[in-house]
Amino acid sequence: MAAHRHTIHHGHHHFGWDRSIPPVLTVAPGAEVEFHTVDSSGGQLDAGSTLADLGRLDFGKVNPTTGPVFVEGAEPGDLLKVTLLHFGPSGWGWTANIPGFGLLADQFKEPALHIWRYDSASLAPAAFGPGGRVPLKPFAGTVGLAPAEPGRHSVVPPRRVGGNMDIRDLAAGSELYLPVEVAGALFSIGDTHAAQGDGEVCGTAIESPMSVALRFDLLKGQAGAFPRFTTPGPVARHLDAKGYEVTTGIGPDLMQAARDAVSGMIDLLCRTQGLQPVEAYMLCSVCGDLRISEIVDMPNWAVGFYFPRLVFG
Amino acid sequence: MAAHRHTIHHGHHHFGWDRSIPPVLTVAPGAEVEFHTVDSSGGQLDAGSTLADLGRLDFGKVNPTTGPVFVEGAEPGDLLKVTLLHFGPSGWGWTANIPGFGLLADQFKEPALHIWRYDSASLAPAAFGPGGRVPLKPFAGTVGLAPAEPGRHSVVPPRRVGGNMDIRDLAAGSELYLPVEVAGALFSIGDTHAAQGDGEVCGTAIESPMSVALRFDLLKGQAGAFPRFTTPGPVARHLDAKGYEVTTGIGPDLMQAARDAVSGMIDLLCRTQGLQPVEAYMLCSVCGDLRISEIVDMPNWAVGFYFPRLVFG
Repeated sequence: MAAHRHTIHHGHHHFGWDRSIPPVLTVAPGAEVEFHTVDSSGGQLDAGSTLADLGRLDFGKVNPTTGPVFVEGAEPGDLLKVTLLHFGPSGWGWTANIPGFGLLADQFKEPALHIWRYDSASLAPAAFGPGGRVPLKPFAGTVGLAPAEPGRHSVVPPRRVGGNMDIRDLAAGSELYLPVEVAGALFSIGDTHAAQGDGEVCGTAIESPMSVALRFDLLKGQAGAFPRFTTPGPVARHLDAKGYEVTTGIGPDLMQAARDAVSGMIDLLCRTQGLQPVEAYMLCSVCGDLRISEIVDMPNWAVGFYFPRLVFG
Repeated sequence: MAAHRHTIHHGHHHFGWDRSIPPVLTVAPGAEVEFHTVDSSGGQLDAGSTLADLGRLDFGKVNPTTGPVFVEGAEPGDLLKVTLLHFGPSGWGWTANIPGFGLLADQFKEPALHIWRYDSASLAPAAFGPGGRVPLKPFAGTVGLAPAEPGRHSVVPPRRVGGNMDIRDLAAGSELYLPVEVAGALFSIGDTHAAQGDGEVCGTAIESPMSVALRFDLLKGQAGAFPRFTTPGPVARHLDAKGYEVTTGIGPDLMQAARDAVSGMIDLLCRTQGLQPVEAYMLCSVCGDLRISEIVDMPNWAVGFYFPRLVFG
């Protein structure tokens, strides 16, 4: 650990984005900071929680982010480079179907909760039911900056300055570039996940508190329209060794095609693995990937949902 | 090659899907067939073609498919299993920006053409400009069956029975399952590609004639709502060794988010690799992947465009 490492404890969190929230730390570019995050329930769930606890969730306290950090010299139009150095996962997590939330909310109206335990040292695949083993790759679902527009903004949707992007490849080693909109950038991080598939289709991943170490750098005047990032190597080697089962959705609307692809995979997993539909839905969310196969063959687009065969093989 | 291998030459092709087109071959389930395909220009372009030839394309003769094959015993409600055994690529291909076609057709209104030459034996990455090298993975863009509805249907959009799905993982070893809608299934294949990224964003891949060997099997009464497939192993090992540059699009419409992500990558490639915008657009189409990072954080979704760093590294 570098001598200039700062630590921000999980008590220093806030709800939503707001440029008026006072920074908890000011650093110079080049600084390394370790953040301790709360899980996305804001500590309302723990490793012993039940479905009844899920029913009592106060949604005003979900998805807290740790921060904000003021980066000296950062101004609107700059690009904040965030190098994700290390994740220290806690060893437990939760995945839930929360009524009204998720890609298939109209089909899955009943709450469901799965508690995960995993080895935070080895990060060996985590058991799901009798036969499933889900590979882990810790990352932060919410990484962002305060937007220029004054007032409190919901933490749920991501935006130009990042936020709740839920990009599962923002893992250790990745370099994220965020457009700065306010003086000091006002960086916060949270919603850490032990694993997630592209799409996060049921609306939750393996929600898991952890520590995140990262480094800030500043690129003056280089802001683009949206966040971008670089990965240092392959992104799916933890999933791909045995190939994939892939279901498709084909039609003129990408959202409906995505829904059809995921529905097809839930049907397939129930038929071949004996899962209940809501179990298959949550499992798809933590390890299956939504990909756009073609977006040009008018008027029908093809979306694929890729489920890694090694989970059951 | 199995003793029961049949061969269908590329002269046996048709334009569009129509259940009234007479089969060119009748086979029993278990049969292996080799198809010789024409490229998606229908032979109007070749390795010596120029931009002027592109301007003379007769769009009534594009995307011919070889077939149809009548599979004995196949009936509506069945599932036709197609095991893709072997691709024999020709060693040349083309990629074009065709005005009016492609994800960013509003931005790229001028025609452009790139002719590729590659080693069909080694399938070594194909050169693009002075510094680019594009990994190859041959597959068939159009694989499908005749739809139930009578009449001629455009070959351009894919549908429930497959067709022009442009799924780049329908490569050697993959098992594709297509829902049968007419007696005999009436299978055809074409639009072979030497390489393509997920999305096929400019509307064309490395369009390349080749031979395709495959096996038919029949699963009675098991048709699902859409095609699905199984891959025997990893799908991106030819691309992922050095990681990815990733641009994002974030907003309430998946199509616009995809457009923003691809526009961001074109900007990045022009800035860092000195490409012209239309060159970057065509390069994105043959090796970059569109992925849906999250589709649940209302009201904004995140789409990522993944460009493999090894192309320039």
